[in-house]
Amino acid sequence: MEIVESIRWSAAGDAVDIIDQRELPAREMRRELRSVDDVCDAISTLAVRGAPAIGVAGAMGLVVALGADGETSRDVLLSRCRLAAAHIRATRPTAVNLGWALDRMIGVAEQTRESGEGFAARLRREATDILIEDRAMCRAIGEYAADLIPDNGRVLTHCNAGALATAGIGTALAAIYVAYERGKHVHVFADETRPLLQGSRLTAWELSRAGIPVTVLVDGAAASLIARGQVDVCIVGADRIAANGDVANKVGTYGVAIAARRHGIPFYVAAPSTTFDPNTPHGAEIPIEHRSADEVRAGSGSRSAPLDVEVYNPAFDVTPAELITAFVSDRGIHRPPYDFTHGLE
Amino acid sequence: MEIVESIRWSAAGDAVDIIDQRELPAREMRRELRSVDDVCDAISTLAVRGAPAIGVAGAMGLVVALGADGETSRDVLLSRCRLAAAHIRATRPTAVNLGWALDRMIGVAEQTRESGEGFAARLRREATDILIEDRAMCRAIGEYAADLIPDNGRVLTHCNAGALATAGIGTALAAIYVAYERGKHVHVFADETRPLLQGSRLTAWELSRAGIPVTVLVDGAAASLIARGQVDVCIVGADRIAANGDVANKVGTYGVAIAARRHGIPFYVAAPSTTFDPNTPHGAEIPIEHRSADEVRAGSGSRSAPLDVEVYNPAFDVTPAELITAFVSDRGIHRPPYDFTHGLE
Repeated sequence: MEIVESIRWSAAGDAVDIIDQRELPAREMRRELRSVDDVCDAISTLAVRGAPAIGVAGAMGLVVALGADGETSRDVLLSRCRLAAAHIRATRPTAVNLGWALDRMIGVAEQTRESGEGFAARLRREATDILIEDRAMCRAIGEYAADLIPDNGRVLTHCNAGALATAGIGTALAAIYVAYERGKHVHVFADETRPLLQGSRLTAWELSRAGIPVTVLVDGAAASLIARGQVDVCIVGADRIAANGDVANKVGTYGVAIAARRHGIPFYVAAPSTTFDPNTPHGAEIPIEHRSADEVRAGSGSRSAPLDVEVYNPAFDVTPAELITAFVSDRGIHRPPYDFTHGLE
Repeated sequence: MEIVESIRWSAAGDAVDIIDQRELPAREMRRELRSVDDVCDAISTLAVRGAPAIGVAGAMGLVVALGADGETSRDVLLSRCRLAAAHIRATRPTAVNLGWALDRMIGVAEQTRESGEGFAARLRREATDILIEDRAMCRAIGEYAADLIPDNGRVLTHCNAGALATAGIGTALAAIYVAYERGKHVHVFADETRPLLQGSRLTAWELSRAGIPVTVLVDGAAASLIARGQVDVCIVGADRIAANGDVANKVGTYGVAIAARRHGIPFYVAAPSTTFDPNTPHGAEIPIEHRSADEVRAGSGSRSAPLDVEVYNPAFDVTPAELITAFVSDRGIHRPPYDFTHGLE
């Protein structure tokens, strides 16, 4: 099973090496990010995407942004860090992981007494830790979540919560990868996930590449697929999980959760502990990013709506906690009642 | 208010003149269908689409298929009719209107004693009657359904059940057009309706053309739009209504109905009496057309999924009667309990 590595240090160590997800599934093309602008552009255009992956990219991006000059004072480096972090943080508001990773990097920067190369080295270690921890969290999520996937299970997922969304083997798809490793037969149904088609472009691509059977469907077909008894389990990722268990995830997730509930199918949310946000009490307080009308109007390059028509294009929706059968994190399986006011204990 | 005329006789009367919906919204291009092959091709490629419109196109297509030779015997003309009807009928299985219109034409052909031009003229009158009746049914649906649209109402619809789906002013959209004529302010939310984007390409186009405010959204955004309290009414068309009130309509309709129910929003189905099918007891017996994988994989011309990935692409889904607040037909408003075993009385 070959699972794609979506984010890593470049060979020379001076850049963030990502797979450019805008080019998938047509081309598997890697790209090196060498500046704050590169990082911001990659995150906002979704060259790198997925809540955990953009957290890792943000942390690694801060290091790249420092530059390599060994003589710079600690104060200058610290203010460069803060400025870069503010720019990177502003790219995408919904996923909590980005803010979390940047806060952690700034915290380390503030505590570092060194200047020049020592300062840079300390931050590089921290970003590398975040990268490694993300991989470990994905693996742990997969080990717990695989227990929830029945043998011969038919699993519906929405968007991409796979290797392409993390530094490791994914969150929702980690369940699939580990179940498959353990010898279970699994068939994945991937909602294509308009407008940017992360399901058909990315989930289908990475699962096919790993040899796991996958069927793509339009988002509107999920409810009737479930109604026909063709789905055993739904599992998705998350961009932010509020303290009460409400979940922001890719727009369309809520509709899948409603259909799953109506037909008595379990609906699981898989996410690393960094996605749980004790500082957001309920889903209603999660900021929802609205994206460009042209993502919808000019679909895949061709004009799919009148040019001047108004578009409602939220990137995310909120699924209330009551529709979620269980969460799976790197700490285990969490069942209701949910209380994440102190994070994951 | 300028409402598009999607199907009519050509000026010379020897062809079915349609607006080629594959070209919308980029180009408003009309096309003349002059043979059975033209008609079958237009219906199966969705150049003409919408349950009522393909019924009308099928009936008019039969006439075109007869040819203009005045000396042909009644038996030859009748067998040409039957053969053409069989070809046309096979293009799309789900909508009941096509079979209904063809059955009506064949019934008339069988009862006609004339041959040559008399036979052809009789069929032309019948097809013209079907066309005119469809227009009248749309108008009647609109008059009844407009009562269900509140002033300043925000109306969600799925796919295109408008002028482009009928010979008249549509079914679901007839409600909007008539409400607007009566001076109500209406804002329409149009699900884009993957895979063929009839919502963003067609509904948005014909409403904009008529000066009615419309906002397009991806199908996955409908549930959260409803959850946010931004929709007052959902109204859709139908391809077939079973005797118990179950409705086959464009895939994705069921998900909208579930979301509407969950949030206490009325969900209406508007359709001419020809769409009610007493011969189909329940939704489970409605044949569901599955369409090409490339509609999903090769979205709007560009590759949106791995080329070899499996695709589940039903064109329709079934919404159970219990989720439908009321039907609106040319005969009035029909509320539960539903019993269409004898059609519309």
